Amino acid sequence: MTTAPTTTAATIAAGSVPAPAGPAGAVRLRSRLDRELPHRFARSAATPESSHLRTEDVAGWLDERRATHRFQVDRIPFAELDGWSFQQDTGNLVHRSGRFFTVEGLRVATTSGPYRQWHQPIIKQPEVGILGIVVKEFDGVLHLLMQAKMEPGNPNLLQISPTVQATRSNYTKAHRGADVRYLDYFTDRSRGRVLTDVLQSEHGAWFYRKSNRNMIVEALGEVPLHEDFRWLTLGQVGELLRRDNVINMDARTVLACAPFSDAEGVALHSDTELLSWFTSERARHDVEAELIPLNQVPGWRWGERSIDHEDGRYFSVVAASVQAGSREVSGWTQPLFEPKGLGMTAFLTRRIDGAPHLLAHARVEAGFKDTVELGPTVQYTPSNYAHLTERPLFLDTVLNADPSRIRYEAVHSEEGGRFLNAESRYLFVDADETDAPLQAPPGYLWVTPYQLTRLLRHNHYLNVQARTLLSCLTSGAVRL
Amino acid sequence: MTTAPTTTAATIAAGSVPAPAGPAGAVRLRSRLDRELPHRFARSAATPESSHLRTEDVAGWLDERRATHRFQVDRIPFAELDGWSFQQDTGNLVHRSGRFFTVEGLRVATTSGPYRQWHQPIIKQPEVGILGIVVKEFDGVLHLLMQAKMEPGNPNLLQISPTVQATRSNYTKAHRGADVRYLDYFTDRSRGRVLTDVLQSEHGAWFYRKSNRNMIVEALGEVPLHEDFRWLTLGQVGELLRRDNVINMDARTVLACAPFSDAEGVALHSDTELLSWFTSERARHDVEAELIPLNQVPGWRWGERSIDHEDGRYFSVVAASVQAGSREVSGWTQPLFEPKGLGMTAFLTRRIDGAPHLLAHARVEAGFKDTVELGPTVQYTPSNYAHLTERPLFLDTVLNADPSRIRYEAVHSEEGGRFLNAESRYLFVDADETDAPLQAPPGYLWVTPYQLTRLLRHNHYLNVQARTLLSCLTSGAVRL
Repeated sequence: MTTAPTTTAATIAAGSVPAPAGPAGAVRLRSRLDRELPHRFARSAATPESSHLRTEDVAGWLDERRATHRFQVDRIPFAELDGWSFQQDTGNLVHRSGRFFTVEGLRVATTSGPYRQWHQPIIKQPEVGILGIVVKEFDGVLHLLMQAKMEPGNPNLLQISPTVQATRSNYTKAHRGADVRYLDYFTDRSRGRVLTDVLQSEHGAWFYRKSNRNMIVEALGEVPLHEDFRWLTLGQVGELLRRDNVINMDARTVLACAPFSDAEGVALHSDTELLSWFTSERARHDVEAELIPLNQVPGWRWGERSIDHEDGRYFSVVAASVQAGSREVSGWTQPLFEPKGLGMTAFLTRRIDGAPHLLAHARVEAGFKDTVELGPTVQYTPSNYAHLTERPLFLDTVLNADPSRIRYEAVHSEEGGRFLNAESRYLFVDADETDAPLQAPPGYLWVTPYQLTRLLRHNHYLNVQARTLLSCLTSGAVRL
Repeated sequence: MTTAPTTTAATIAAGSVPAPAGPAGAVRLRSRLDRELPHRFARSAATPESSHLRTEDVAGWLDERRATHRFQVDRIPFAELDGWSFQQDTGNLVHRSGRFFTVEGLRVATTSGPYRQWHQPIIKQPEVGILGIVVKEFDGVLHLLMQAKMEPGNPNLLQISPTVQATRSNYTKAHRGADVRYLDYFTDRSRGRVLTDVLQSEHGAWFYRKSNRNMIVEALGEVPLHEDFRWLTLGQVGELLRRDNVINMDARTVLACAPFSDAEGVALHSDTELLSWFTSERARHDVEAELIPLNQVPGWRWGERSIDHEDGRYFSVVAASVQAGSREVSGWTQPLFEPKGLGMTAFLTRRIDGAPHLLAHARVEAGFKDTVELGPTVQYTPSNYAHLTERPLFLDTVLNADPSRIRYEAVHSEEGGRFLNAESRYLFVDADETDAPLQAPPGYLWVTPYQLTRLLRHNHYLNVQARTLLSCLTSGAVRL
């Protein structure tokens, strides 16, 4: 007989889940589902103010944190990067520790889309990071512990982020900085109750098969409050999501994964039809994406301060130096990707038989783990398409929409730790049968918001742009 | 404004889902969930006989089909393969059409398990195939259209398979054979209603990131019956699953994905705890698996008739010629993988607070798309471990189990189109707190059968061995 393995605190941390002690007959099972949870989040989304920080005082608090930290970012030539260099044989841009991330080359061949074959630089960061929000009830309403966090690529440097953004390098101390605050709520199961925990992709155009854990944990016991952090209701975050560049990308993706209550038991297509459509979209696309040495990427020019596409399109690889007082380390240098132009990212919406629906698009992005994920109806960067004669589907419907049809509009920036001034205009736009028929074209499907948020319980169904827009729904920034 | 795209039959087939016609206000939404469906499958599982073919006559029918088809398989030297050859520069074994599959090399580095780094041959077959079962109600009971199908690797050649097993090469006629019968039920949405449609992995030890669509479609209208096919109830298939080598692997994986009714709203761990554990298992394992040329795989010996590991372990790559009358083509040659030894694959089971639970194991297999999937408690091939001093966890509990504790036991073979005599003994074995404590060791978790079958609505949660065992539950071959 096998001896029953003994379980220690260390083994629990390394992949074991605590179970009730005692003989099996005495154990009480629990409900598989916590049906109250979506309502608790809905209640928080419906709460527009908090006694911890009034919404009107958020801008002042951010200014105050910005002033305290004296954060400064400068572009530098690659030669001034500290610890980063181009590898001799491959040309890959790597850190001497072998950690953080690398910039490598990617060769792509696919069977659909305006481009069928191309090469590009890409960020490889195989380690899974944690994006986590600690929540706690005050006066019967869930509050979220949000951070005022500076990131070098944000146009305004400081935005509101999740409680924790930690790469594995962060929490294993690869850069020998300070501990990541509140990280133990996400790594030690005795500190809180996990409400959401799912792997989601990041930008498939710029990252090679990157994914992060999106977590929400309800704290047990008192939570000490550091001055860079404040408790906000979900409704307050929703209000802030109506403003440009306040809620950062990592916060948006975690919020999208929050439990969302089922207003609708009905939809144009059943869940099985939706899943079958998704499966057929994954199956019908062939995408071959292969890492190659960065110095074997044709069509890109290497300069002293940037690597650029020869037509000036897509993005550039650049370098920056960072000076800061509040970061886990006080200063560093790093490469960043700087996209060209403002993106345009929108869901078309329709009420069908009274119920709001969104038009989802099954998108191929070369960096996805598996051919396609669902994106918004329109996800478009002008400079990538300006030279093509064929206009992306539904783009003009968004561009020419009468203001009365725009249900939501704000500019948000993508992950400021990797991307420099990567901004996109995010919209929900009402459509009708002429713009966007119920019989959607191949690769598109009308689905309800609830159907999409249900998929966010699982890995890699929705891309990060779709998740930004869904965070506007889970937080109440827009009501359809 | 964008002109509304016109939809033709061709575009519907290529990724569009039919929607009700007419103005949005007149459209009636449908239920997201078909709550009756699991009960219809349960009713079929509870029906032990059919008027179409009595269970006692199945063996005779199979013998008759076997006699009719005069199927013969012979091992041949690689030099006698027709259309297949070793590529000059890479040594990869490829077909001259560039299709079907290739045998290449794999280099693996991982941070867990008894082996941390190795090289091996692997099958690369990037195209997604269809494994599909047509179902139809007769006298109020769902029947499954099952096929008597010969596959060269099956020890008894002919077994019962799904209605359709089609690689994309099959249905695009790469081998210029006859049409695949009943395929249009899975590609033409007007022929039936999709009940299940999900991508699932195949053997991660032998396939590089392979997945297939697992589909169940309810036929609309009359279904013509070919002599290699019979209608069986799910209960009959369950009875046949109690016998060795009757129901083939492709049938088992599709059956595992069948809707399964919720006997339990409770479990030892909530669904969120289960998903969080799965996420943490995916995140904590690093697996680097990289295709390399087959002739750069160290530790393997090339012979005229086989490629073998130098210690005689794991598997061999061999070649076979096939003569048949009933196949889509009348004869062919192909490579096969021949594993060493009989596998041992088992779920430990316990009743916890009255509810049956299974002990799932988060397994790393090098060929998975994403680090880990859930497998049975024990999945073990003796020859791979005999030289190691550390015994796999829970193996001895299965090997030494008193017969009274064995709830299910049968030998099944893996996919006979790729694997030669790849047999494993599949078991459900009752355990107690001494054998397998509720506080499971790292990488293991007690879950209910319903929790696992719910995960099978989604891609790549459960490996193919776990799916074989779950098919015994969905079909009623075993009741816990």
